Amino acid sequence: MGKYVSIKVIDRYRKSGRPEDSFSLKRLLLGDPLATSQSGHQRISKKVALAVFSSDALSSVAYATEEILLVLSLAGTAALGHGLPIATCVAALLLIVAFSYRQTIHAYPGGGGAYLVTKENLGVGPGLVAGAALLLDYLLTVTVSIAAGVAAVTSALPSLYSHRVLIGIVLVALITLANLRGIRESGALFAPPTYFFIFCVAAMLITGFFRVQVLGLKVPAPPLLSVSEPLTVLLLLRAFASGCTALTGVEAISDAVPAFREPESKNAATTLAWMAAILGTMFLGITVLAHRLQLVPRHDETILSQIAHAVLGSGVLYYLVQAGTALILVLAANTAFSDFPRLAFFLARDGFLPRQLANRGDRLGYSNGIILLGLLAALLLVIFQGNTHAIIPLYAVGVFLSFTLSQLGMVRRWYDRQEPGWRLKMLTNLTGGITTGVVMVVIASTKFVHGAWVVIILMLLLYFMFQGVRRHYGFVAKELSLEGYRPKAPSGHSVVVLISGVHRGVVEALEYARALSPNVTAVSVEIDHKATERIRERWREWGMGIPLTVLKSSYRSVVKPLLDYLDDFREKNPNQVVTVVLPEFVASRWWHHLLHNQTAFLIKGALLFRPGVVVTSVAHHLGRR
Amino acid sequence: MGKYVSIKVIDRYRKSGRPEDSFSLKRLLLGDPLATSQSGHQRISKKVALAVFSSDALSSVAYATEEILLVLSLAGTAALGHGLPIATCVAALLLIVAFSYRQTIHAYPGGGGAYLVTKENLGVGPGLVAGAALLLDYLLTVTVSIAAGVAAVTSALPSLYSHRVLIGIVLVALITLANLRGIRESGALFAPPTYFFIFCVAAMLITGFFRVQVLGLKVPAPPLLSVSEPLTVLLLLRAFASGCTALTGVEAISDAVPAFREPESKNAATTLAWMAAILGTMFLGITVLAHRLQLVPRHDETILSQIAHAVLGSGVLYYLVQAGTALILVLAANTAFSDFPRLAFFLARDGFLPRQLANRGDRLGYSNGIILLGLLAALLLVIFQGNTHAIIPLYAVGVFLSFTLSQLGMVRRWYDRQEPGWRLKMLTNLTGGITTGVVMVVIASTKFVHGAWVVIILMLLLYFMFQGVRRHYGFVAKELSLEGYRPKAPSGHSVVVLISGVHRGVVEALEYARALSPNVTAVSVEIDHKATERIRERWREWGMGIPLTVLKSSYRSVVKPLLDYLDDFREKNPNQVVTVVLPEFVASRWWHHLLHNQTAFLIKGALLFRPGVVVTSVAHHLGRR
Repeated sequence: MGKYVSIKVIDRYRKSGRPEDSFSLKRLLLGDPLATSQSGHQRISKKVALAVFSSDALSSVAYATEEILLVLSLAGTAALGHGLPIATCVAALLLIVAFSYRQTIHAYPGGGGAYLVTKENLGVGPGLVAGAALLLDYLLTVTVSIAAGVAAVTSALPSLYSHRVLIGIVLVALITLANLRGIRESGALFAPPTYFFIFCVAAMLITGFFRVQVLGLKVPAPPLLSVSEPLTVLLLLRAFASGCTALTGVEAISDAVPAFREPESKNAATTLAWMAAILGTMFLGITVLAHRLQLVPRHDETILSQIAHAVLGSGVLYYLVQAGTALILVLAANTAFSDFPRLAFFLARDGFLPRQLANRGDRLGYSNGIILLGLLAALLLVIFQGNTHAIIPLYAVGVFLSFTLSQLGMVRRWYDRQEPGWRLKMLTNLTGGITTGVVMVVIASTKFVHGAWVVIILMLLLYFMFQGVRRHYGFVAKELSLEGYRPKAPSGHSVVVLISGVHRGVVEALEYARALSPNVTAVSVEIDHKATERIRERWREWGMGIPLTVLKSSYRSVVKPLLDYLDDFREKNPNQVVTVVLPEFVASRWWHHLLHNQTAFLIKGALLFRPGVVVTSVAHHLGRR
Repeated sequence: MGKYVSIKVIDRYRKSGRPEDSFSLKRLLLGDPLATSQSGHQRISKKVALAVFSSDALSSVAYATEEILLVLSLAGTAALGHGLPIATCVAALLLIVAFSYRQTIHAYPGGGGAYLVTKENLGVGPGLVAGAALLLDYLLTVTVSIAAGVAAVTSALPSLYSHRVLIGIVLVALITLANLRGIRESGALFAPPTYFFIFCVAAMLITGFFRVQVLGLKVPAPPLLSVSEPLTVLLLLRAFASGCTALTGVEAISDAVPAFREPESKNAATTLAWMAAILGTMFLGITVLAHRLQLVPRHDETILSQIAHAVLGSGVLYYLVQAGTALILVLAANTAFSDFPRLAFFLARDGFLPRQLANRGDRLGYSNGIILLGLLAALLLVIFQGNTHAIIPLYAVGVFLSFTLSQLGMVRRWYDRQEPGWRLKMLTNLTGGITTGVVMVVIASTKFVHGAWVVIILMLLLYFMFQGVRRHYGFVAKELSLEGYRPKAPSGHSVVVLISGVHRGVVEALEYARALSPNVTAVSVEIDHKATERIRERWREWGMGIPLTVLKSSYRSVVKPLLDYLDDFREKNPNQVVTVVLPEFVASRWWHHLLHNQTAFLIKGALLFRPGVVVTSVAHHLGRR
């Protein structure tokens, strides 16, 4: 222990450090790698924060009203009148959730994501459930937002409707790329589209109400819808469940408290209040106006587009509204591209997901998580054919499950700490938790057959996967533990060189083998007797006095006789380590590799699973020709 | 030189030698491996040989007449009358080719394939052209035969017509599998279908002529075809070119002389004469009968099926003829499955194709060639949608090119040797060679735009590929030559162990490294400073006094700093060999590998291209859990 051990640190900081595994296309798309020291947050103002963290929540007004009306329309045109009371309930729910989350913001100034809050207060199991729900939620956010964004575009340009899946995938690919490059939460990028969208919707609503109320805009009678289901309480609940998608993304601000300027918590809470107010107003306004205009959901044009058409005509203003909607929806998808990889990082750091998800890429983003999200979102777009309505039933369950768990976690926290004023705070969170819990049950049950079952099964699978991964890592850590380990030096070291002929590559391998150990044997597997004869002849000259063993192979397999030989060898010399040296070629062009037998590859694969045998390739580099 | 060198031979012959790389599905499909000593030919009688080697040639009557009529029908119904004279020309051509090939049989009792004969007499270049032509020919034999076989089936069962591509692919897959298992040229398998087909066609022809000539069968007037092309000499030549597909497969017997009983050449020549006679009779008979019955080609029913319908009605006899036709066509495809891999073996043995094609598989067949042929044939069936007529224009060019080259090779041989009677023999082959040469030009020019250009381009590509592969192998042999090579013992051997932590796997790797060399250094790449701190702490206890170097990586790449370090090291110690030891895990379940960083894999890939650096993985085997 007292002996001197040299530990040296080499730090060659190179501005243009170029990882060897990059190729030029990657550099072109992603830019130069960034140093770890370049990471770090910039603090942002409330105005910018509202833009950055609200795009997900605000963008839901693009589809929430429509989803309510779509369910109601099953019971015929008259049933559409129930849209307004249902939207009011949703708005009330928003109020409760916002109040509840303000408390999370104050309690977790370091960021209070549902996974963190639930794990800390309710334990690992519920935390993982929240984690599973959120991962799916973020994935669905991308899919729904992109699908709805494409719908905004195809409402304005109907000829693109048949290409909607392709457009969606291209958008996902662009966002993935942008995130791999590393989008900072920069106000310059996010503020304009968000405020532009708010402005567009506000302008449209004001103009609309003015034209309907004051000018008495003539509204065409709605088309008579065929009644396919009776108007039951269940249908109303289903419509309410669909409307609850308006609340998705509300939790974003509470995750991101550290990004605010000081005093962080206060600023974040204020921003949350503003966001909820804007979201509620827009959502109610759109619903009321849709009702006044007697609009009916159509598969080829969104409700928002219909309103814009009715209020603004078909001019430039209309296209501006559609562009604003599409933009904010793309931003909303982009939000999930920072949330998903960050949550995956937390889960991977805690050992519940593969460690690769905790690595930072060239540009400091969690590249693996970003790529994974992009691929899954593209897959979902294909499966659901870019149809927003088909994905919505899967969406809200996970969101409300994480709301519920996170707020119940807060309840537990207040109860455990019993700080001054804890009773009121606990009550607030309890109200929020119970309300969202009830809503979650309503959503899960009314939407169960329409797709919620898929999400529930996926959440269960994710949950068990988390546990399985954690168990494996725990097992590996135990296996690798040095506790009580006594190094036992191997009693000797032998080298076996596998040869298929006598040539320069083989002689080089023999030289290397001799540098490793004095106990070297060469082994050749005989498939063709004539080849052995040639080897024999030349061995006397080039074999360096190393003994050669020829293994006859009746069945022309190279691997099998070699394995038998090594098993025999290990049996006779139980404590020895055996190194198998394989002379290999490295060709200068990839297709040249097709021209050489892939036996070395097979041998490596077979020996990988033999303990006590180490395989080494000694490469002979072929020149370029 | 005088020193004693031990060379030991180990031969453990195991009846049930089980190659390690097999898995149970493979064993189930292919059966147990066969020993090399189990290979060898059995000699077969003339009757069996006729069945085994004629299926390819005889089966062409299933489509040759139809192809002539198909071209003629472009000039309207009246033009179909020219079918008979054209067929007579084809039959005369057959006579010439058969005579010519009888001489090849006598000259090459060891088997006179076109590649061999051409290469030996005209040189390597023309030999490779013949080889390229034959490889494509065999591939097209499979495709055309399977497509025509499926057409025989769908003529009888029209409801299967829309599934013809799938049926064709399934047939190709079955034949591939049968050949991987190893079909011996067994009379038991081949004789019944071939003789059954000959019997069916003979019976049909006799009945047909009897009913038409003697009983005066009433023939319905043929439908009036619209005239889409004028009846020009060019069209007649095109029809002739199409009819020449009747000659495909005629060369098979000359390739297989050693399979005959003694006297091999005489028996083979007799069999060839019989085969030509049967083929010519059937072909002319079918053409005459089709003419008498005033049949017109139809896309959904073959001419042969139409004759059978007209002569035999729609009863059992009709279905027997169709079944016989389908069977012999499948056998014809099967013939190519022994010809193609055998030719590929010859080419690979001579260094013109990748060496893997010269390996015998578990069941002694040239498995790689068989699989390659199966895949390519399936691909062509998909591309041409299983349509015989679409593939035919590609077919005959290669066949006639190899005919021509092979016979001109014989001419050269007679001329060079000037044995007794050489003038007559040379004249015979010259007649054959010139005739087939002219026919080849006719085919290539009349069918050029219909697809022959594809084959010509493919033949050129193959030719250049052969040359490129040969050049590469020559280059490698020169690079690896020990001529003038002086082994220079490396001045020393250092070992670098790459570690990412201190655990059991790392300590085992350090022990191994110490067994290799006294010069061991451990290297750790620092991405996270905290991890380095942990390593430092534990190194004192577990580092075995080995110096540790920490490489700081500002850009989080593990590979780049390691490569820089090794480059430095090699620069300072130019004559040393460096072994990089990577501690790796081997998990017991495949998905566990996803849970560990794949850094070792990246490092191996990057170091593969550094001369003087050898990479060794020391595997720690994780228990099963």
